[in-house]
Amino acid sequence: MGSRVMAAVEKEPMNPELQRLRDSIDNIDAALIHILAERFKCTKTVGVLKAELGLPAADPAREAQQIARLRTLAGDAKLDPDFAEKFLDFIVEEVIRHHEAINASARAPQR
Amino acid sequence: MGSRVMAAVEKEPMNPELQRLRDSIDNIDAALIHILAERFKCTKTVGVLKAELGLPAADPAREAQQIARLRTLAGDAKLDPDFAEKFLDFIVEEVIRHHEAINASARAPQR
Repeated sequence: MGSRVMAAVEKEPMNPELQRLRDSIDNIDAALIHILAERFKCTKTVGVLKAELGLPAADPAREAQQIARLRTLAGDAKLDPDFAEKFLDFIVEEVIRHHEAINASARAPQR
Repeated sequence: MGSRVMAAVEKEPMNPELQRLRDSIDNIDAALIHILAERFKCTKTVGVLKAELGLPAADPAREAQQIARLRTLAGDAKLDPDFAEKFLDFIVEEVIRHHEAINASARAPQR
């Protein structure tokens, strides 16, 4: 009987417009995940290259350019530019974490 | 003379592979910003609909489904599932902020 109750809960009528929007959000999220995977492939290669070239993980001048560009793109796309900047901060924080890990593993054999 | 110094700084030779990767990252970021703009268009409509239907802004059951799905998609795309979950948290936090603002403005005329 418990499973029949669960089935009833799962089949609770969903507003069709809400369902349609959630389906779109799910499609968009799948796109975001795959694009983010590609972005981290790029930044991991950048991390290896920077370690080889002896460049620091963080690059404030590059980040300032990226922030300014993304704020403009966000404004054109009617996305809050402050959110776009927070979003880039969030991604760059993860990238720097990856780069520091690459640097740490590059240094390890010299010990 | 100051502008000549600036020009010299700007033309500092950039490793061509690093430049190529940064160009790809810039293209990917433009795609992310535009896809995020579409996502927030969907969630803003969801927010209005939820307010009309008297549904709460947060929906823990829906969020649990989204987290599980995105973790699987991330794994398939070789993206850290923990990062994918943090990413969704980051986006949902912004969405809930929007929904609460919609609810607040919907309640305002009743005062």
